[in-house]
Amino acid sequence: MANVDLDKIISLCKRRGFLFQGSEQYGGLQGTWDYGPMGVELKNNVKRAWWRRMVYERDDMEGLDCAIMMNRLVLKYSGHEDTFSDPLVDCRKCKKRFRADHVDPNEKCQEGGVHDFTEPRPFNLMFKTTVGPIADDNNIAYLRPETAQGIFINFKNVLDSTNRKLPFGIAQIGKAYRNEITPKNFIFRVREFEQMEIEYFVKPGADDQAHEKWVSDRFNWYTSLGIKPANLKLYPQKKEELAHYAKATTDILYRFFPDREDETRQFDEVEGVANRTDFDLTCHSKGGKLVLKGGVEIPNEHAINKLNYFDHIDNKHIVPYVIEPSAGVDRTTLAFLMDSYFEEQVKDETRVVLRLHPELSPIKVAVLPLKKNHDGIVNIAKEIKGTLQKSCGWRSVYDDTAGIGKLYRRQDEIGTPFCITVDFTTLEDKTVTVRDRDTMTQERVAIADLPTYLSKRLGNC
Amino acid sequence: MANVDLDKIISLCKRRGFLFQGSEQYGGLQGTWDYGPMGVELKNNVKRAWWRRMVYERDDMEGLDCAIMMNRLVLKYSGHEDTFSDPLVDCRKCKKRFRADHVDPNEKCQEGGVHDFTEPRPFNLMFKTTVGPIADDNNIAYLRPETAQGIFINFKNVLDSTNRKLPFGIAQIGKAYRNEITPKNFIFRVREFEQMEIEYFVKPGADDQAHEKWVSDRFNWYTSLGIKPANLKLYPQKKEELAHYAKATTDILYRFFPDREDETRQFDEVEGVANRTDFDLTCHSKGGKLVLKGGVEIPNEHAINKLNYFDHIDNKHIVPYVIEPSAGVDRTTLAFLMDSYFEEQVKDETRVVLRLHPELSPIKVAVLPLKKNHDGIVNIAKEIKGTLQKSCGWRSVYDDTAGIGKLYRRQDEIGTPFCITVDFTTLEDKTVTVRDRDTMTQERVAIADLPTYLSKRLGNC
Repeated sequence: MANVDLDKIISLCKRRGFLFQGSEQYGGLQGTWDYGPMGVELKNNVKRAWWRRMVYERDDMEGLDCAIMMNRLVLKYSGHEDTFSDPLVDCRKCKKRFRADHVDPNEKCQEGGVHDFTEPRPFNLMFKTTVGPIADDNNIAYLRPETAQGIFINFKNVLDSTNRKLPFGIAQIGKAYRNEITPKNFIFRVREFEQMEIEYFVKPGADDQAHEKWVSDRFNWYTSLGIKPANLKLYPQKKEELAHYAKATTDILYRFFPDREDETRQFDEVEGVANRTDFDLTCHSKGGKLVLKGGVEIPNEHAINKLNYFDHIDNKHIVPYVIEPSAGVDRTTLAFLMDSYFEEQVKDETRVVLRLHPELSPIKVAVLPLKKNHDGIVNIAKEIKGTLQKSCGWRSVYDDTAGIGKLYRRQDEIGTPFCITVDFTTLEDKTVTVRDRDTMTQERVAIADLPTYLSKRLGNC
Repeated sequence: MANVDLDKIISLCKRRGFLFQGSEQYGGLQGTWDYGPMGVELKNNVKRAWWRRMVYERDDMEGLDCAIMMNRLVLKYSGHEDTFSDPLVDCRKCKKRFRADHVDPNEKCQEGGVHDFTEPRPFNLMFKTTVGPIADDNNIAYLRPETAQGIFINFKNVLDSTNRKLPFGIAQIGKAYRNEITPKNFIFRVREFEQMEIEYFVKPGADDQAHEKWVSDRFNWYTSLGIKPANLKLYPQKKEELAHYAKATTDILYRFFPDREDETRQFDEVEGVANRTDFDLTCHSKGGKLVLKGGVEIPNEHAINKLNYFDHIDNKHIVPYVIEPSAGVDRTTLAFLMDSYFEEQVKDETRVVLRLHPELSPIKVAVLPLKKNHDGIVNIAKEIKGTLQKSCGWRSVYDDTAGIGKLYRRQDEIGTPFCITVDFTTLEDKTVTVRDRDTMTQERVAIADLPTYLSKRLGNC
């Protein structure tokens, strides 16, 4: 079980500077969030941990970082212009709009009685703008609704500038935008969000096995960073649930809603791992075509290159199949927050502690002076902070803005694995107290031994 | 002198996977660029080096990461709705639009003769979209034209969730958008770009000194990462050039255009360091006002909080002054590329080498097998790659896709400081060849000594 419901996380996030409502000073902009001083570190650590494992520690990956604003033709031939929509209804009485599949037909209308809904019609979720000095239809561009399309259209660029042979993947982290009709549940469903996506290209025929492997690799990534397996679930989509171009999709679900009674409703998607076959490379290829649901075909009249691959073994051009593990950065961050949140009784008080994996903790070490007006103590504390930060590379802070008990509590709440306290004994024997976040035990360690002592526990995180 | 003109950099960037034109597969989207496998690493390293020095290694900074899409009121009260525009002219003959201050009145028109321009009129540079299911004027939102505004409107949120006392700063890295009429010069003037901005809050009266200090801190950041001082210039803006709200601004210029004859025209802005006084916190405050150029005042009727600071020493509320060092990530990346680019004669060949600071190099170590079909050699090479990457944390790659000479050349072109070659001698005595990018000297080093050997030269980068 997750230990906490969303409300407690939201409160912690505001109090400790993880997340604030976007444009809050002006009443907000629904579906946008600002990451505060602790939030930006946590989110960056999540992204870095993903990039490290998915790109650096493998030998079959390249990275990419494409522009968010895209030529509308990209989203035409990807199928988004035609099909990336939610069904929308209007109430004839109150004139409000709702997502047809999310609204209860018996819901009360503010004008009295229940809503009087129109028939549902499709509402495209892409944000549109115009580029250049003339604001007309010829100059429309979209904010990408997913990072994936940037990878597909750069397939040839990556091939030409590297020496990749199949199988290999391209990874990208970046923002994407969806004009959700009803953003909700904190950073779970938002309009501006961030994705971590991989497109992994394989020979047709090798796709099923690669798909299976990616599902397990991605599942293990979450647990290796501390998510409890009991709070995760694999959900292989049923044939009738699959997007029409997908051969198979397995969702990775996290228990985002532990307070819901029905256990299956407690879980929702944190990542999807899809086998998209050769759908995307075909639809973006010169001479290729986009096949819509229902079979309508749109021949590609605008693409410049053929997006294929010369197979030196079989001596022919092929269109690779692609496996796509696609995770939401914000949802992943939320999962790590929820999974690490604990409340504990310590004597008469309730201690809130984030038992984050050290690699994800916004701050690795807090150096605290027992007395803030004592030059000797303060100088040593600042020196330790400087050394741990500059020489060892661990994110360290110096804090003297409260008493030691309050400072410990603050660091517990943001998930700092270690607190180092400099006290009067330090002045005599050059040792400090190292306090462990999880056990709250304190150990006396020589200042000179700190790098080794912490290195064993923090690694190169 | 910089060593290279833009054309050579553009060619290297495409060839080696640093940068591709945005939406290139569909003819591009002007003013957008995609960072390729090497580009994403270089850009991320630039951002990380900035964050490390500006946030982690100081004790007076907090980070932030705000949404790109903002409530239009933020940009109304910041002054951008009224004044963030360039003068635009239309040619009555060819119907094209130009930026009035960039176009030569004697320029030829494609319809014959010279252009016949209209009077200039202001063209707002912000990208606009609508949010939510109804696309009307009430639902307009802007893509932020700078990251700075997110910092100002979160001033109170940061104060409340940390324990900061003046002076302190807030740092942010993120995308921003400007609908430039004529994007040009590669990634120098683009429509989608990334910024690294700091707003540093001080007591009024302490602002001049803080401004001076920031100018020198920021100048030193560039040189500490290898930019030659001769290619940088400080340009204190003249009184008549200052934005009306700025008390002083010093631009940091880089020699982006070394092939221009007039030396002063070789330099252009990579960063600006402005003293913005209390302008921004005042215009976004409940009960505050925006003062436009010319003196028109717009009282703030929408903001929720007063953005001020309680000074415990003088026991009163004050509105801090702010110093803003604002750098462009893309321009900074371009400066590092240009400054590190060298062509050298090596025997009969021209060697292209990027002498990047190791902290910025996309790859720190390339491990190369002398023979790709020899299991013993290949296994050792892959093992070394794994160890250097996982245990030491240095971005390492294994590459066997060409002969050793070609592999060296490739790594030189992307700025890899060290190449390790595994050969037949390795099998006998467990040593490898370490080749230095800059000197091209090769040293025989025991595999077991590699972490120490490289650590001295790479540090924790």
